[in-house]
Amino acid sequence: MARWEPGTRERLQAAALELFVSQGFDETTASGIAAAAGVTERTFFRHFTDKREVLFGGQHVLAERFTAGVDAAPEDASPADLVSAALRGAGEFFPDDRRAWSRRRQAVIDAHPALQERELLKLAGLARDVAAAFADRGVPEPAASLAGQSCLTVFGVAFGLWIAEGETRPFAELASLVHGELARVASAPGR
Amino acid sequence: MARWEPGTRERLQAAALELFVSQGFDETTASGIAAAAGVTERTFFRHFTDKREVLFGGQHVLAERFTAGVDAAPEDASPADLVSAALRGAGEFFPDDRRAWSRRRQAVIDAHPALQERELLKLAGLARDVAAAFADRGVPEPAASLAGQSCLTVFGVAFGLWIAEGETRPFAELASLVHGELARVASAPGR
Repeated sequence: MARWEPGTRERLQAAALELFVSQGFDETTASGIAAAAGVTERTFFRHFTDKREVLFGGQHVLAERFTAGVDAAPEDASPADLVSAALRGAGEFFPDDRRAWSRRRQAVIDAHPALQERELLKLAGLARDVAAAFADRGVPEPAASLAGQSCLTVFGVAFGLWIAEGETRPFAELASLVHGELARVASAPGR
Repeated sequence: MARWEPGTRERLQAAALELFVSQGFDETTASGIAAAAGVTERTFFRHFTDKREVLFGGQHVLAERFTAGVDAAPEDASPADLVSAALRGAGEFFPDDRRAWSRRRQAVIDAHPALQERELLKLAGLARDVAAAFADRGVPEPAASLAGQSCLTVFGVAFGLWIAEGETRPFAELASLVHGELARVASAPGR
C-alpha cells in the first residue's frame, strides 16, 4: 500500500461529489476530480479504482459494520435480536455529520439509472453478507437469509427517511422505528 | 397485434431454454431459437423483443398476480393480511407443472452473472410495484414499502425452496412457511 497524505481521500471524495452534482457523473473524469482536489491523477488512482468507486467504495465498510454488530451480540441472542444488533452496527456508519454527504451522494445516484442499478446490486450483495454473518452465528436457513434481507429492508427504508429534506432524527432512532413497523407488516396472518 | 398459431410462444420458450442449457445463453441466437421451434425469426420477434425476454417476459404477469391478490383482499384487511393476500396471488403463477421450467430457467440464470443482475433488478422493480398496490389500498409509508419488500423477501426464499432438487411441496405451502419464519426473525426486539 502506498503512503498518502492524511485527508487526501476525503478531499477527493468531496471534490468528486461537487463535480458529479455540478456537471454530471458522466461528464466528470478522474483527472478532473484530481485537479479539483489539488492532487495528481495518479494519486486519485491510489485511492479509488475509478470514479464510481468514490460513490460505492464505502459499502464494504458498511458490510463490516453490519457484521460487527452481529459479532458483538450475546451468545444467546435470538435471530430477531441479531437483526437489531446488525442494524445498530450499521447505524454507526451514519453519524449526523455524514448526513449532508449521504444526501448529495443519493441525489447523484437518483439522477443516473446505471448508478441506481449498481446501488441495488450492492445492497443485494450486502444482504447476502449479512445473511452469512447470521449463518456463522448458527442461524439455520431459511431464517438466516430472511434475517439478512430484513436488515437490508429496514436499512433501506430508514436510510431514505434519514436523508429526507429537513429530517433531523439520528439514524439509529429511525432504524428502530422502521424495524418496529416491519415487525407489524411482516407478522404472520392470524396472529 | 399480429395473429399467431396457439402454442407458438410456449414452443419458442421451450426451444430457447433447451438451447440456453445445452449451448449457453451467449451462444444462442434468436434465429437459432426460431429454427429449433420450427418457426421463422420474424415469428420469434412477434413474441419476444429479444432472447433475454424469453427468460424475463413473465415478470409483468407475476407483478399482476401479486397485485391481483392485494386487490381481492377484503376492505378491512390489515397490512399484514395484504402481504398474505399478495403472496397467495403470486402463488397462482407457480403451479406444480411450472416447476421443471422454473428449475431450468434458474439454472440458466445462475450460470450467467449478467442475467443474475437482470433478475435482481426485476425483483426490485416488482417490490416497488407491490408497494404501490399497498399504497393504493391506503397503506401509508413506510409500511407500504416494507410490505412490498417483505412480499419479495418471502417470495424469493420460497421460490428457492420450491425449485430445490427433490422438493415436492406446492409453492403456496412453502410461501406460508417462509412467511411465518419471516414473522419470527423480523419481530421487533423485546416482544
